[in-house]
Amino acid sequence: MTEASPARRSRITPERESELYAAVLALLREVGYDALTMDAVAARTRSSKATLYRQWGGKAELVVRALRHQKPLRFADVDTGSLRGDFHELAVRQDDRQMRQHAALMRGMAMAVHDNPDLLRAFRELLIEPEQEDLRLMLQRAVERGEVRADNPAFDYLMHVLHGGIGARSVIDELPPTQDFLLSYIDAVVLPALGV
Amino acid sequence: MTEASPARRSRITPERESELYAAVLALLREVGYDALTMDAVAARTRSSKATLYRQWGGKAELVVRALRHQKPLRFADVDTGSLRGDFHELAVRQDDRQMRQHAALMRGMAMAVHDNPDLLRAFRELLIEPEQEDLRLMLQRAVERGEVRADNPAFDYLMHVLHGGIGARSVIDELPPTQDFLLSYIDAVVLPALGV
Repeated sequence: MTEASPARRSRITPERESELYAAVLALLREVGYDALTMDAVAARTRSSKATLYRQWGGKAELVVRALRHQKPLRFADVDTGSLRGDFHELAVRQDDRQMRQHAALMRGMAMAVHDNPDLLRAFRELLIEPEQEDLRLMLQRAVERGEVRADNPAFDYLMHVLHGGIGARSVIDELPPTQDFLLSYIDAVVLPALGV
Repeated sequence: MTEASPARRSRITPERESELYAAVLALLREVGYDALTMDAVAARTRSSKATLYRQWGGKAELVVRALRHQKPLRFADVDTGSLRGDFHELAVRQDDRQMRQHAALMRGMAMAVHDNPDLLRAFRELLIEPEQEDLRLMLQRAVERGEVRADNPAFDYLMHVLHGGIGARSVIDELPPTQDFLLSYIDAVVLPALGV
């Protein structure tokens, strides 16, 4: 499992890769992770199974790369010059429909991740760890600008606060996560927890 | 659907009620919400289905009351004299095994709640809304003591921060939620977000 995307390590075009991920996510919404098969992905995307396995290694990596392709918090390359600006930039990078769809998919994945060690490994290596590293760099810049202290204990829990809050939204408020929710949540909780 | 527990509104003893809830949660862990039937609950607990329906109205209410009986955050009657003391008291009211079991059950429920309107209603009326009210009273006392401002914007998001954080723990850290995690999380995030 490498960090490079399949498009960058092979002849598949980025457009084709996007199309394929969209089909995987549509299937995931329809049948869930456990019932999703590589045969169904191959049929839906008119690919050969051999190609899918060669490019993605297996179902876990393919599904996680598809989720990553549409994930709402895209920390990479966020650098507005202030921590508040950076967090707000994160919130507005996806529209409400994309955020709602992603939240629905993640609810289904929460169970599957615990039942499938392969999926948990792909989830951590391809989604969680790269995001933690991007977040770490974003916070490091804020420390260097003097906005937050390097030993702020909230650093260790920002992933929990952000993803947990987005995930809890629909049950607690009976409303999907939206840009407005995320912006208010950042201002009311995330930045105060960091002392900003 | 009333707030009184079935034990308080009928001849069922609190011990029998606890025993029944434990059996419901065991079944829930084994088969999940969708496959759980009142027949199976009746057989496992040596009750008649008529009794179960009379006491609990139906599967959604029975399952949610069972979850409430073992839920980790028990705000009611927490009043230590300080907000930090109150939140810490919350964290230590259940042991790590109970917290881990509850987190596993809630992962399964997250999907079911979205697919079953009856369950969502019971979930909100019996779990979320009473807890929000208990939390509101706890914060109100802190406002009266001068510990926090009455217009603190984090008030609206404490349920998201607490439940989201507990729920996100196992995927983000590959560790179950524990008392130690919750105490650190409260000190690093919840209290600073409230300006305490």
